[in-house]
Amino acid sequence: MTTSLYDTSIPVFKQMLGGLGVVLAKAEAHAVEKKIDPEALLQARLFPDMFPLVRQVQIACDFARSVPTRLAGAEVPAYDDKAQTFEELRALIAKTTAYVDSFTPAQFEGSAQREIITRKGTPKERRFSGQSYLLSYGLPQFFFHVTTAYALLRHNGIEIGKRDYMGAY
Amino acid sequence: MTTSLYDTSIPVFKQMLGGLGVVLAKAEAHAVEKKIDPEALLQARLFPDMFPLVRQVQIACDFARSVPTRLAGAEVPAYDDKAQTFEELRALIAKTTAYVDSFTPAQFEGSAQREIITRKGTPKERRFSGQSYLLSYGLPQFFFHVTTAYALLRHNGIEIGKRDYMGAY
Repeated sequence: MTTSLYDTSIPVFKQMLGGLGVVLAKAEAHAVEKKIDPEALLQARLFPDMFPLVRQVQIACDFARSVPTRLAGAEVPAYDDKAQTFEELRALIAKTTAYVDSFTPAQFEGSAQREIITRKGTPKERRFSGQSYLLSYGLPQFFFHVTTAYALLRHNGIEIGKRDYMGAY
Repeated sequence: MTTSLYDTSIPVFKQMLGGLGVVLAKAEAHAVEKKIDPEALLQARLFPDMFPLVRQVQIACDFARSVPTRLAGAEVPAYDDKAQTFEELRALIAKTTAYVDSFTPAQFEGSAQREIITRKGTPKERRFSGQSYLLSYGLPQFFFHVTTAYALLRHNGIEIGKRDYMGAY
């Protein structure tokens, strides 16, 4: 078996990043229209020990970059994005989408069988095949943060719907 | 290309249903321990026009059943589960997991290329390949409701973590 995971990963990340961008744009417009301090949304949390919106978006973008990178057999750099405003989050999503889009199917050849090691050298080290890394780890993590960002904004009264979350498909 | 989507779908649904079961079990135990009326959690919503917990779980189970069923080329029956209590939700998740587990790789042969039509005969009719149906529609929908159930319980103070959401992998 030499299945490529390109089709199982790249279009999904692009679609959902698009949805996340729509959701954030509506939140930003809502803040402007209602004269809400953008920080009230950007720093909103569903519970005190959960991450605020801004961090949910950052982590979603981290997974959207690191998962394809690992599948393609490259090293994942440390992401040190400090996006804090709606404008910066928009730029982060655009940058992330362009990065995801830059992969080619050829880079994913043999990716399903590639061994991927997470948290290497730590007690939490895990070894995956590329296939299980994507499906049992990468996508569940990515969807978690994209959906939590949505839920958090919905909870704050932003008029968004599942159609926004879903992106263009 | 005659890729099968068995490996791209069945293990994911099983893993995440397992996580959903853990999250609900902790919510139920929390209600008992704190002498909280279970209905306060089961009917909790993140916003008045969002679905309550009980419905989020029902819909997650609907997708976990309907997506593999369609990929296998079978008709999707109308699900009329009326699970309302923690006990009934637990039974629904068990039933759903057993159903998902009953599929065989052979049933998914050619599933990536199979034409799948949703909301057939309605203005919202959509045609997908099996591959795009799973990746651009089925999984995003399923993860949406699983994560929203988690977020809703987290918002209500249930001590759960992403590790619970992730299930066993």
